[in-house]
Amino acid sequence: MCGVVGVVGTAAVNQLLYDALLVLQHRGQDAAGIVTSDEQGRLHLRKDNGLVRDVFNAHHMRSLLGNMGIGHVRYPTAGSASSAEAQPFYVNSPFGITLGHNGNLINARELKQALFATDRRHINTDSDSEILLNVFAQELLRFLEDGLTADAVFNAIARVHGRAQGAYAVVGMIAGRGLVAFRDPFGIRPLVYGRRETAGGVEWMVASESAALESLGFELERDLGPGEGIFITPEGEVWTRHCAADATLTPCIFEHVYFARPDSVIDNIFVHRARMRMGTRLGQKVRRIWPDHDIDVIVPIPDTGRTVALEMAHELGIKYREGFIKNRYIGRTFIMPGQTTRRKSVRQKLNAISLEFRGKNVMLVDDSIVRGTTSREIVLMAREAGARKVYFASAAPPVRFPNVYGIDMPAANELIAHERDEDAVCSAIAADRLIYQDLDDLVAAVQRGNRSIERFDCSVFTGEYMTGLAPGYLDYLASLRGEGTVTEAVAGEVLDLANKK
Amino acid sequence: MCGVVGVVGTAAVNQLLYDALLVLQHRGQDAAGIVTSDEQGRLHLRKDNGLVRDVFNAHHMRSLLGNMGIGHVRYPTAGSASSAEAQPFYVNSPFGITLGHNGNLINARELKQALFATDRRHINTDSDSEILLNVFAQELLRFLEDGLTADAVFNAIARVHGRAQGAYAVVGMIAGRGLVAFRDPFGIRPLVYGRRETAGGVEWMVASESAALESLGFELERDLGPGEGIFITPEGEVWTRHCAADATLTPCIFEHVYFARPDSVIDNIFVHRARMRMGTRLGQKVRRIWPDHDIDVIVPIPDTGRTVALEMAHELGIKYREGFIKNRYIGRTFIMPGQTTRRKSVRQKLNAISLEFRGKNVMLVDDSIVRGTTSREIVLMAREAGARKVYFASAAPPVRFPNVYGIDMPAANELIAHERDEDAVCSAIAADRLIYQDLDDLVAAVQRGNRSIERFDCSVFTGEYMTGLAPGYLDYLASLRGEGTVTEAVAGEVLDLANKK
Amino acid sequence: MCGVVGVVGTAAVNQLLYDALLVLQHRGQDAAGIVTSDEQGRLHLRKDNGLVRDVFNAHHMRSLLGNMGIGHVRYPTAGSASSAEAQPFYVNSPFGITLGHNGNLINARELKQALFATDRRHINTDSDSEILLNVFAQELLRFLEDGLTADAVFNAIARVHGRAQGAYAVVGMIAGRGLVAFRDPFGIRPLVYGRRETAGGVEWMVASESAALESLGFELERDLGPGEGIFITPEGEVWTRHCAADATLTPCIFEHVYFARPDSVIDNIFVHRARMRMGTRLGQKVRRIWPDHDIDVIVPIPDTGRTVALEMAHELGIKYREGFIKNRYIGRTFIMPGQTTRRKSVRQKLNAISLEFRGKNVMLVDDSIVRGTTSREIVLMAREAGARKVYFASAAPPVRFPNVYGIDMPAANELIAHERDEDAVCSAIAADRLIYQDLDDLVAAVQRGNRSIERFDCSVFTGEYMTGLAPGYLDYLASLRGEGTVTEAVAGEVLDLANKK
Amino acid sequence: MCGVVGVVGTAAVNQLLYDALLVLQHRGQDAAGIVTSDEQGRLHLRKDNGLVRDVFNAHHMRSLLGNMGIGHVRYPTAGSASSAEAQPFYVNSPFGITLGHNGNLINARELKQALFATDRRHINTDSDSEILLNVFAQELLRFLEDGLTADAVFNAIARVHGRAQGAYAVVGMIAGRGLVAFRDPFGIRPLVYGRRETAGGVEWMVASESAALESLGFELERDLGPGEGIFITPEGEVWTRHCAADATLTPCIFEHVYFARPDSVIDNIFVHRARMRMGTRLGQKVRRIWPDHDIDVIVPIPDTGRTVALEMAHELGIKYREGFIKNRYIGRTFIMPGQTTRRKSVRQKLNAISLEFRGKNVMLVDDSIVRGTTSREIVLMAREAGARKVYFASAAPPVRFPNVYGIDMPAANELIAHERDEDAVCSAIAADRLIYQDLDDLVAAVQRGNRSIERFDCSVFTGEYMTGLAPGYLDYLASLRGEGTVTEAVAGEVLDLANKK
Repeated sequence: MCGVVGVVGTAAVNQLLYDALLVLQHRGQDAAGIVTSDEQGRLHLRKDNGLVRDVFNAHHMRSLLGNMGIGHVRYPTAGSASSAEAQPFYVNSPFGITLGHNGNLINARELKQALFATDRRHINTDSDSEILLNVFAQELLRFLEDGLTADAVFNAIARVHGRAQGAYAVVGMIAGRGLVAFRDPFGIRPLVYGRRETAGGVEWMVASESAALESLGFELERDLGPGEGIFITPEGEVWTRHCAADATLTPCIFEHVYFARPDSVIDNIFVHRARMRMGTRLGQKVRRIWPDHDIDVIVPIPDTGRTVALEMAHELGIKYREGFIKNRYIGRTFIMPGQTTRRKSVRQKLNAISLEFRGKNVMLVDDSIVRGTTSREIVLMAREAGARKVYFASAAPPVRFPNVYGIDMPAANELIAHERDEDAVCSAIAADRLIYQDLDDLVAAVQRGNRSIERFDCSVFTGEYMTGLAPGYLDYLASLRGEGTVTEAVAGEVLDLANKK
Repeated sequence: MCGVVGVVGTAAVNQLLYDALLVLQHRGQDAAGIVTSDEQGRLHLRKDNGLVRDVFNAHHMRSLLGNMGIGHVRYPTAGSASSAEAQPFYVNSPFGITLGHNGNLINARELKQALFATDRRHINTDSDSEILLNVFAQELLRFLEDGLTADAVFNAIARVHGRAQGAYAVVGMIAGRGLVAFRDPFGIRPLVYGRRETAGGVEWMVASESAALESLGFELERDLGPGEGIFITPEGEVWTRHCAADATLTPCIFEHVYFARPDSVIDNIFVHRARMRMGTRLGQKVRRIWPDHDIDVIVPIPDTGRTVALEMAHELGIKYREGFIKNRYIGRTFIMPGQTTRRKSVRQKLNAISLEFRGKNVMLVDDSIVRGTTSREIVLMAREAGARKVYFASAAPPVRFPNVYGIDMPAANELIAHERDEDAVCSAIAADRLIYQDLDDLVAAVQRGNRSIERFDCSVFTGEYMTGLAPGYLDYLASLRGEGTVTEAVAGEVLDLANKK
Repeated sequence: MCGVVGVVGTAAVNQLLYDALLVLQHRGQDAAGIVTSDEQGRLHLRKDNGLVRDVFNAHHMRSLLGNMGIGHVRYPTAGSASSAEAQPFYVNSPFGITLGHNGNLINARELKQALFATDRRHINTDSDSEILLNVFAQELLRFLEDGLTADAVFNAIARVHGRAQGAYAVVGMIAGRGLVAFRDPFGIRPLVYGRRETAGGVEWMVASESAALESLGFELERDLGPGEGIFITPEGEVWTRHCAADATLTPCIFEHVYFARPDSVIDNIFVHRARMRMGTRLGQKVRRIWPDHDIDVIVPIPDTGRTVALEMAHELGIKYREGFIKNRYIGRTFIMPGQTTRRKSVRQKLNAISLEFRGKNVMLVDDSIVRGTTSREIVLMAREAGARKVYFASAAPPVRFPNVYGIDMPAANELIAHERDEDAVCSAIAADRLIYQDLDDLVAAVQRGNRSIERFDCSVFTGEYMTGLAPGYLDYLASLRGEGTVTEAVAGEVLDLANKK
Repeated sequence: MCGVVGVVGTAAVNQLLYDALLVLQHRGQDAAGIVTSDEQGRLHLRKDNGLVRDVFNAHHMRSLLGNMGIGHVRYPTAGSASSAEAQPFYVNSPFGITLGHNGNLINARELKQALFATDRRHINTDSDSEILLNVFAQELLRFLEDGLTADAVFNAIARVHGRAQGAYAVVGMIAGRGLVAFRDPFGIRPLVYGRRETAGGVEWMVASESAALESLGFELERDLGPGEGIFITPEGEVWTRHCAADATLTPCIFEHVYFARPDSVIDNIFVHRARMRMGTRLGQKVRRIWPDHDIDVIVPIPDTGRTVALEMAHELGIKYREGFIKNRYIGRTFIMPGQTTRRKSVRQKLNAISLEFRGKNVMLVDDSIVRGTTSREIVLMAREAGARKVYFASAAPPVRFPNVYGIDMPAANELIAHERDEDAVCSAIAADRLIYQDLDDLVAAVQRGNRSIERFDCSVFTGEYMTGLAPGYLDYLASLRGEGTVTEAVAGEVLDLANKK
C-alpha cells in the first residue's frame, strides 16, 4: 500500500507535504519521498527508505524549494517485489515530470517491454511507478502541438487508461507547469482533493485520504471519480475531466476493513462509521447463529479491532474491555555473530492484562485474518492470561485469494483460509469458536455509506478480479514474492539512480 | 521521569536490555543508555540522546559484550534541568561502578559540594545520577576491609540513604562483581525484580516496572521495599536487605494516574485496575453532584484517558465512543531561514471524528490537567467538530504544586490550577463543565489494590512534601527550569565525557 | 577542472573505477561519482559532494554492480558556477545514458534553451554536463533506424560537435550497450585509452590521464584525437572514428604547467619532462637577463614547483633546497557563535625552515602566479625566516585573462597580472625581483615533447580564444562567478535529483 | 607513535587545539581527541578513531568550551595492542583529571594489577595512558593536605617516575586547576613548551614538537628536560621542576630518522639539519667504500627520503631527481561478498616516472628499512621502469630489534634485518647494492646539533634497552601484536566508556 499527496500552494510547500506524509504514514512505512518545483521550474528531490521522520532532515527540507510539490510513502506491493526503490520517479523528457502512485499494474512486464522496444525508454527499476511515469510521458508527447495544455494532459491520461491495467491512484508534477492526478477507471484506490484559503490565495491539495486534507486545514472538495484526471497550474487554475469511457466505480473494500484511517471519508463513505456498522452486523450474526452464547467480555486486538469490537459489544450488550496493551515503541532484533535469526514474538508487541482474561469467556475481535499466525499467538496469549474460553471474530470474511491491486498480501498458499473451511481455520488458530463476517454483511456495512456504489473490489474474498488477469499472473506474482524475500534481504544495500546514503 | 533496568544473565544481555528499554520507553524518550560488563570485567557503554531505536545500531550492539548489564531511558527531571546528559554514569574507583536512576535528589547541590570538598570527587554534569553514583562509590570505600561483600554493598546503601534526600530508584553495576539496586526510604519510585529459568540457569532482572519483566518472560518476584537494596552476583547469588531504619512506603500516586503502563503491577497494585476504579469513582461523582446531567457520549483523550473513560461510561450507562484519532507518526517542524518558530497544533496529533461530536453533549475524559493548554485546544476541536456542549473530566484532582520527586512538571505558575479554583480552570479551558476527581476518591481507587499502603505521595495536589524541602528549593527549581529551557536549546550540541557524535 | 574515467571490464569494475578516481583526484576534489551497468542493463549510481574517500562507503560499493561503468571527479568550472551538482548525469531516453565530462561549453545557455524549446528536454541543473548529455541523447535518436550501432553513436557525436562549442572530454555509457567517449574538435582537454589482459579477457579503460591507466596496470594505447570518438561494447569490441571535419589539435598548455600529474603523458608529451624543460629555460632566462645575479639558493613552492626549481638549479649551478614544509593534513576553520570568519593563513599550510633562509638571497619558484595573494604571503614568510633578498620565478608567463575551457580561474580583475606589468606584479607580491617565463619559452618547452602539435591553447596568457566567444560572454562568466560565490555558500544544502544525504 | 598538545589560553582554545593536532597528525592517524575545561571547571571531551578532520565536526567544536584544554593523536603502540581506545582519558577523583601521552610503559601489566589490588582503581582498557592517569591521580591524593599546589603536582610526578618504567611524554589537565605535563627520566619522547602574547595576555602551549608551536604563532621557550614537570594554572602562572633524581637525557634517535617533522627542533637539534647531515655522511660512506661507483642518478623515496637524498647527491656530485610520484589521495580497498582481501600494492601509492630510470644506474634513498617489503616492491618498480642497476641506501643502520618506547614496530622476526647480514638484506630486497648508514655516523649526524647529549636511544639498532626489560617482555610484546591483529580486526566495533558512534 502506498500514500500519495500533491500540493499547489502560495508559499513553500515542503513542510506541508512532510506533514501530509506523516498523516498518510499508515499507508506505507518502507520509504518516503518529496519532490518540489521552484520558481525557475527546477525540481528538488529527496527520497530514501525509512519512515518520514527518518528520511527528511533540516538540510533536506531547506533544499526542497518551491510552492508546488508531490510526496509519497511506500509499502512494497506484491506485484513489485523490490523494496529498494523509493518514489517519486523522474524523467526529463518532456518538460521534466515526476510521479508516484498507489496501486499495482498487472501488465507491468508488457508495458516495460513495449516502452523499450517502441519508445527506447529505459526502465531502471522494478517499480511500476517508473513504468506509469514513462507511459504518461510518452503519451504526453503526442499531444503537444499546441504546447502543454490541460487538453494535452487529459488526452495523455486517457491513453494511459488504455494501456495500463490494474489499480493506480497517481499524483504527478510537470516541472513549472502543474500538478497532475488521476485514478484508474475502476477507482480501486482512493484519491481526493480539496482547497484552503490563505492570505496569499487559494491552495490545492490532492491526497490518498481526506484525513490528510482535514488535519492540515484543507476542505475536502470531493473524490476524483473512476478514470478522472485533474490538472492544477501553479497559478491555481483547476481542470478536471473524466478520461475513461467505460469507468465504473469499484473501490477496494479492504480500505474500509483495515487500511484507511477511521477519520477518512472515501467515496463519500465515512470509514469510521463503516467499521461501526461492521461491528453491529457481526454482533447481529452472533445473536443469529449463536443465540445462547456464553461470551463474558469482548476484547479488541488493538488498534484496528477497536471500533468494530465496541459496536459489537453495544449490539450484544456485552462488556467491552481493553485487554491488550500495545507497545508503542518498536526496535530491532540484532543478529549477533554466530546467532541465527530470532523472530520478535507477538508478546513484545502486545501484552495481555491478565485481569481481563482470568476465568472469563473472551471474544477477541480483529479486522481480518490473513496468515493467521498472529491470531493464533494472540489466542494463546489470552489462554495463558487465564481465559476459560477464547472466541475470535473477524470483521472481514475469510481471505482466500491474493490481492493484485496494491495491497501487499501473501501468496495464496500462505493465507490461512486458502483451501480451509471456517472450522479448519478455527482449529488452526487454536480458538474455541470463530465467527467470520459474511461477505454480504461486509458489503452492506460499507455500501450503506454511499448507496450509489454498486460494486466493490472483493477479490481477496471471492477470487473475482474485475480487470481480468493474464494466465499465469498469480503464479508470476507468487514467484516475485519469492524473489522479493531475497531482494528485500539486500534491499538496504542496493543503490540505484535514487542515490541514497 | 526515567526507566531503569538491570540484568544478570547466563548469556549475552545486550538484546535483553534493549528490549526491556523499549518496554520502558514511555518513562523517558529523551536519552537512552546501556552498559555491560564482560567476562574480564571490562565495561562497554553506549548512550546518547534519542529514542532507544535511534541510539543503538548493530555496531553498538555488537560491542555491548557480557552477561550482565544495566540500562536507562531518561526524561529530563525538573530538578536536573539539563537534558544533555544520558545515563548510566561511570566512575572507576572503586572497582568501576556504573549507575542510573529514576527520581530526583532535593539536596543535590549540597551533596555535590560535599563530594568535592571532602572527597575531592569532581562532578562533571548537572545530573543527580552522577552525584548518587559518587556518594555510593565513596561510601563503599569505607567497607572494603573484607573485600567487596554483600554486607559492604548494603552498608554503603544505608549510608547513601543517610545522605541523599528525595526520590531514587537506582540500578547500578560493579564491574565484574555484580548488580546493585535500591529504592529510597519512602519507596517513591517503583522498582521490582524477577527471574526466569533458561537452559543455562536462572537469570535475574531488576526494572522500574513489572511489564518489562513480563514481556521478556521473567516472572515477577516482588517489589523492592522502601529503603531496600538488592545485590546479585554474576553467578546468580542474590542478597536483599532493608537498609533504612525509618522506611515507610509512600509511593507516587501519579504513576497510577499517568506514568506507568496499565499492564504493570506496582507495590502489588494493578495499574490498569486502579485506573478502572478511578473511572468508576468519577462516574459516581458525576451521578452524585450532577444527577440530571445531559451527557450524550463519553469520549476519551487517547491514549491514557481510555480506561478511565470506559469505566466511567459503564458506571453512568452512557455510550463510550472513540472520537479522536491519534496520529501515531510524529515528525518535526522545520524552521526555514527567515521563519519564526511555529508550534505544531494539537490538530496534527489528534483528529476529531466529527460524526461522534455533531449535535451531541460530549464528556471528554483525560487522566489529568497540567498546563491546560492541550485540554483547551481539544475542547475547541470538539466544538468545531460540532459538539453542542463540551464537558471535561479529569481522573486526577487539580494539579497545583510542582513535583520534586522526578516528574518533569512545570513550575507552579505554569500550572493552570495554580491559584485558580475549579470554575476558573473550567473557563480557562473553555469547557461547559469541568469535573475533577476528588483526592480522597483518587487515593481510595489506588489504595484499594493494596490496603497495606497507608500513604501516597500526593504532593502535586496538596503541596505536602514528605521529605521536607529546604527553604527556597521550589524557587531554585523554577530557576533551573528557566535555565533548563536555555540549556535544552543547546543540549544537542553539548558534548561531555559521555562522548557523543 | 575535472577528471573522467570509463571501464569495460570482464569482472566487477567498482573498485577499479574507485581506484582510478583516486589517481585523478588532483583534477577535482569537490565531488565524485560512479555509475555502473549490470548484466541486466540496470544502472547503479552513487555521487555526492566530497573527496572520493568520503563519497563512497562499503554499502555504496556493494551496490555498484556490473562489469562496465564510468566515474567522475569534479572541480567547479568558471562557466558553471554551481557547485551543487555531482556527475555523472542520467537520462532514460533513449536506452538509458549516463555521462560526465571535463571542460566547459561556451554556448551552454543557448543549448539549454534549444533543448527545451525544440526537444522539450528539461535541464534541471546548471551543469553543462547535463546539457551535453541531452544533446547527445537527442541526436542519437536520429540515427536509430538500424538500432544502436557504432555508426549511430559516431553520427550522434558528429552532431554534438556541430552544436556544442567549447572544451569537452566526455565519457558516457549507454545502459547495457557500451561505453562512449569523445574529445572536442580542438582536443583542448586530454583523453586517453588503453587496455589490459586479464584471465577473463581484455579490459578497456578511457581516462583523463595516462597515470590512471598505468597505476592500474593498463597499457596506454593512445590519446583520442581532436574530435575523435570511441565506442566499446560490453563484449570488448572497440570502434573509433574521427567525428569532426575541421579538427585541429590545440591542447591546453596549462595541463603541463600545473594541472596534470607529472607522471602522465598527454598527446605524447611527458608532463614531467615538459616541466623539467620549463626549469631549464627559466634558468637560461635568468642567466641571459641577469648574468650577475646573487642568488644563493633555489627553493621550490611545494608541490608543483619542485621539478621546475630542480632543473632551474641544475641549469644555474645553484643549490636547490627544500625550504618549505607542506602540512599534509588539512582541517577546517570552525566558525563559533559570535565569531566572524577567519581565513586560514598560508602559514598553516606551509612552514618555512628558517635554516634555509637565514641570511640568504633566495629564489622561490612556483608554477604560476594567479591571484598573487599566496605568492605574497610566501614571500613574506621567507623574509620572516631571515632571507636577505627574496626573488620569485614563475614557470608560466603572466596570467592575464580568464579561462573559458574548464579551468576554474578568477575573473580578469582578480588576476594580479591583469592590467599590471611585471614590475607592478613584483612589487605587489613584495618580491625583490620577479622572473616570468616567456611565452615562447613555455610553448617551446612543451612542444618539444611532440613537435607535431602546432598550437596550444594559451588564452589565459594571450586572451586569444580559439573557439571565439559570444559578445559579453566574459562578463556573463564573471557574473556567474559572483553568483557562484553565493551559490557555493548554500551548495552543501541544495538537494536536486542527485539525491544526497 | 602519538602526538600531544596542551594549551592554557586567554580565550576559547578549541580551534587552537584542533589546528595543533593537524600539525601533529603525522605522529598518529588512528585516533584523535580533545578535552577542554570551561570556566566552571566542567570538562568537555570529544574523541574517536579517525583523522582529526574526520573526528571533529562543527557540533563537537561548539561543545568544546573553555580556555584550557589538551589534545592527542594516536598511533597504536606495540605495547598497547588495542587500537580501540582514543585519548585523552578521564578519572573524576581527585578533582577530575584528563591525560594523554606519547610513549609506552614496559611495566603496564604490573601497574594495572597494583592499581586494582591496592587502590581499587578499575582500568577499563588496554591503554597504558589510562594506567598512567590512574597512577598520577592516586599519587596526587597523597599530597593534598595543603590543597592542590604546584608542590603537590610535582611530588606526584616524582612518584609516577618511581613507579612507571618506559617512555612517556605526558600532557594532562586538572579540571579548572591547570595544565600538567612531564617527560620520563630519560626524556625518550620529545616535549616542548612555548608562549605567545595576545591582546588578552600570555598564552602557553605544551606540545610534542616545536612545529606545532611555530605554526600557531607560539615562540618556543625550551624543551622539558628528562624527568621534568611543568604546571600552568588557568591564570597563566607557570612552575617547572625536575622531578627525577637520576635523569639523563637519552632521546630516541628515530625521531630524527623518520618520525618528527623536519621543521621541528628537538632537544635543540634541528631535525631538518640532522637529516641533511645523514645525507652528507651517507655520501661520504659511498665515496669511502665504493670510490668507483657507477651511480647515474639519486632518487628519493618520497616523502621522507628527500632531504637525505638531496644532500647525498650534493656530497657525491650526482644528479638528484624525483623519480617517484606519490599519490596524495588514499582510499580503501573494499571487500566485496565472496572476495578475499586484496592488498593495495605500492604501485597505487607510488608511480615511477620511467624517464628517470630508463637505462640508468639508480641509487634509491630511504630513511630506513623495516620490514623490507615496500623497499623490495620499489626496487622492482625501478627495474620495470627501465633502470639498469638499482642501488639502495638507508639513512639508518639495520633495524634488528623491536621498539619498546612507543614506536609501532613489528616483532623481531618480521624485521628484514633480524638475523640477516647486509648482503642477505640486499638480496632480500632485490637490490644490486645496499648501503646502510653506520650507527656511529647516524649518532654523529644527530649529536652534532647538540653536543651536550651524550647518549641516544638506539635500541632498535643495538638491542640495548636503557630501562632494562623484564624477562620475557619482548615475547609478551610479540604476543600482544598477535592479539593486536585480532583486536584490530574488531577495533572499529568495540565501544567502551569512550562512547563512540
